[in-house]
Amino acid sequence: MTSHFQPVAFAHASRLINHGPTVLVTSAHGARRNVMAAAWSMPVEFTPPRIAVVIDKNTFTRELVMASGAFGLCLPGAVLVDLTYAVGSASGRDGDKFARLGIDTRPGPVLGVPLVEAGCAAWLECRLIPERHTEDAYDTCFAEVVAAAADPRVFANGHWNFSDDHPALRTIHHLGAGNFVPAGGMLKARAL
Amino acid sequence: MTSHFQPVAFAHASRLINHGPTVLVTSAHGARRNVMAAAWSMPVEFTPPRIAVVIDKNTFTRELVMASGAFGLCLPGAVLVDLTYAVGSASGRDGDKFARLGIDTRPGPVLGVPLVEAGCAAWLECRLIPERHTEDAYDTCFAEVVAAAADPRVFANGHWNFSDDHPALRTIHHLGAGNFVPAGGMLKARAL
Repeated sequence: MTSHFQPVAFAHASRLINHGPTVLVTSAHGARRNVMAAAWSMPVEFTPPRIAVVIDKNTFTRELVMASGAFGLCLPGAVLVDLTYAVGSASGRDGDKFARLGIDTRPGPVLGVPLVEAGCAAWLECRLIPERHTEDAYDTCFAEVVAAAADPRVFANGHWNFSDDHPALRTIHHLGAGNFVPAGGMLKARAL
Repeated sequence: MTSHFQPVAFAHASRLINHGPTVLVTSAHGARRNVMAAAWSMPVEFTPPRIAVVIDKNTFTRELVMASGAFGLCLPGAVLVDLTYAVGSASGRDGDKFARLGIDTRPGPVLGVPLVEAGCAAWLECRLIPERHTEDAYDTCFAEVVAAAADPRVFANGHWNFSDDHPALRTIHHLGAGNFVPAGGMLKARAL
């Protein structure tokens, strides 16, 4: 499958999660791989692009991330709301969720992390920055973004554009209990 | 002014920022106080409720937070989009932004942090958990939520309800450069 995603410049990579979307955290180590949903992530730096994400220490994803030192953050569009909730509600220890749910992946260009594009708005390939204390105390994992790409229909030239044209690619934001709000209806601040 | 906000139970406090809203970070130390906007925050734990927020080490807010060990996260509604961008674009070192912009506050019930309710959907009063390394390396400040409250028109019984009835109170999510998306148009995930 040829990718229709376009690379996102490092200076714009953190902006992909600036507005708080729920993400799919993808990971692999050896022959094992996994995908989970995470509502708790944020940028911590624009340049170099760095992010933080909460990955519970009891998850299979955490095990793979600690072993591989890498993970992906893939931003599901509204079309993937059911899939996002599904991968957040089952453990990869009980079987390969990619296979069960029919999720295609491509390898990340730098670290080979499995990345999801179909139905997603963007992805970030991330290298873990080991921080044992915050990983232990807060399940908070810091990472550097080593590659990023987005669907140019909704993110181009460093800017999101959530127009009415592509509702399926609007990022989704988890309120809890399977309820999400999609990004849309842009508001432009005026100077006071 | 009598508050129309209702307390939010500790078990539900982290859910207030689960969906990635932009927040106003409020702080005070002695006679000095400040308010800034922050797009980079996330929960890190439900019970006890704990959060992380990025507060640049060069900001006046950071100085007040380190001195007082406390801050507030107030969630502006869509009605405050211009004000949110304004407080994110000027430094409190150049003058009191509350006074200049006519922002009323009430003291937090536990720590006395100045909190904004008019035009906001909710607030969290937070006690800093000192973490020198992550504060220095990533400007990331961890905190425990010691009190929380919300406007019951949009958050009640532990759940957000962004119906069409109260568009002014929809949380806002910063895309960058003064462009925000409001929370709304709820999507309910179905089991796969």
